[in-house]
Amino acid sequence: MAKPGVHSVQIQKVIGAERASTPDLVATEEPLEIRVWFGPAHKRQKKTISVTMRTPGNDFELALGFLFTEGILKSYNDVKTVRFCEDVDTSEAVENIVIVELKDGVEFNADLSERNFYMTSSCGVCGKASIEAIENQNCSSLLVQNDFVAAETIKSLPSTLLNHQKNFGYTGGIHAAALFSTKGELVLCREDVGRHNALDKLIGAIIAQENIDPTNCLLLVSGRTSFELVQKAVLAQIPVIAAVGAPSSLAVETARNFNQTLIGFLKESRFNIYSNPERITF
Amino acid sequence: MAKPGVHSVQIQKVIGAERASTPDLVATEEPLEIRVWFGPAHKRQKKTISVTMRTPGNDFELALGFLFTEGILKSYNDVKTVRFCEDVDTSEAVENIVIVELKDGVEFNADLSERNFYMTSSCGVCGKASIEAIENQNCSSLLVQNDFVAAETIKSLPSTLLNHQKNFGYTGGIHAAALFSTKGELVLCREDVGRHNALDKLIGAIIAQENIDPTNCLLLVSGRTSFELVQKAVLAQIPVIAAVGAPSSLAVETARNFNQTLIGFLKESRFNIYSNPERITF
Repeated sequence: MAKPGVHSVQIQKVIGAERASTPDLVATEEPLEIRVWFGPAHKRQKKTISVTMRTPGNDFELALGFLFTEGILKSYNDVKTVRFCEDVDTSEAVENIVIVELKDGVEFNADLSERNFYMTSSCGVCGKASIEAIENQNCSSLLVQNDFVAAETIKSLPSTLLNHQKNFGYTGGIHAAALFSTKGELVLCREDVGRHNALDKLIGAIIAQENIDPTNCLLLVSGRTSFELVQKAVLAQIPVIAAVGAPSSLAVETARNFNQTLIGFLKESRFNIYSNPERITF
Repeated sequence: MAKPGVHSVQIQKVIGAERASTPDLVATEEPLEIRVWFGPAHKRQKKTISVTMRTPGNDFELALGFLFTEGILKSYNDVKTVRFCEDVDTSEAVENIVIVELKDGVEFNADLSERNFYMTSSCGVCGKASIEAIENQNCSSLLVQNDFVAAETIKSLPSTLLNHQKNFGYTGGIHAAALFSTKGELVLCREDVGRHNALDKLIGAIIAQENIDPTNCLLLVSGRTSFELVQKAVLAQIPVIAAVGAPSSLAVETARNFNQTLIGFLKESRFNIYSNPERITF
């Protein structure tokens, strides 16, 4: 198949009492290993941070966005190179392993890469601790704003996204994260079988591009919103996160804590506002 | 709120040009830390294996199912106790931390708990390596079977599930994993904001109950199917996995590798069969 991100498989379609063998498209899922190289030039250290199941494509952005939203990477300026691993024998790129090499002298706390370490350090795991952990990443609350975006613009986002999200049309099984201007124009869109990955790719693209100001944009995600998605959007300093699906309790709590406007069940004619409605003009 | 697993929040509902402030229900999301105690009685070791964001409820099953499908726990017989952590000062249960204590003498490989360790050990991360990793967990392929279940029974599963899945009705944002008999009767159902957690809870319940034979059952999941969901179902030796949503490429590949029947886009009148259709009678 020439289409990136999708695979052709032979299946049986059952419709009523009929069945027929037919080719069909599914979203590609493959593991990606993210490695970080750090430390002084004469004593380079290498560490595997994560293996995530993702749809191939925009892998450098995925690695950058993941490291940034996990608090491991402080700034894109700290990055020396991003590249695929090379096979030592053939010198060919191994496209399921991305190496993010930090500049000499950049501090790297290998412990921070032990995911969720903060929540495990005491007998007090709770949603509050999770929110505090974001605060501990030096993440500031979003500025309280009035009349940032019109309600009608918000209602227009899903149809704009759907027109751009080709692989969803092909497979019916791929998530998207998209950045929009406050006028409802699509700025960036990224797709993945994993909703966290789609957002990591988008945020990786944002931090690697100097001309995008996330504080002036809206985020639309195709699925539901969890703590993690809101956490990532807060770290990227996007003031409005809208979702086609439902939010979780901790998604709502986190958005409220950081003054982020959280929208759910977004359709052409209606939506729910879970936090900071003052940004929306009626 | 008296309902377990859901939270009440005050929101603004926007319908057309109208908006109104109203209470609404969202699915509860809270972190759960899973700890394992192991080693000889005189030298007990404690290790945090994971922190997962989950909907509270069936937490012991979640811990057991997670440890089992990660290959950390070989058998329920190896478990001495499962309990919540106790606050040292108040002796009250800390309900976001579950301790799974293994029996004396049970082997525990702490390295195995480094998730996905197998895929990171060489420069060969790929879908094939992921499938081999399941094989390395001594997981055998499912028996090839003819005429295991009728197509009409499969079509009936989603409506049976929906009638049981109360929290989805309340919140529109919670996943379910359900086990059915081959006659279409609901055997067990578990819910969670995370689809992996819903399945881990279900599998934890299966391994802890002697009277359930998963090899004689069907699994229905409310969302899409990924590698991880199929992996878990294969490890639990459930021969048929049906999903309301789409499968990924690696979900299809994994199901085919282990002779599992994978069904997607399941509706009342139709479904797609991605692997081993011989189990289905027409």
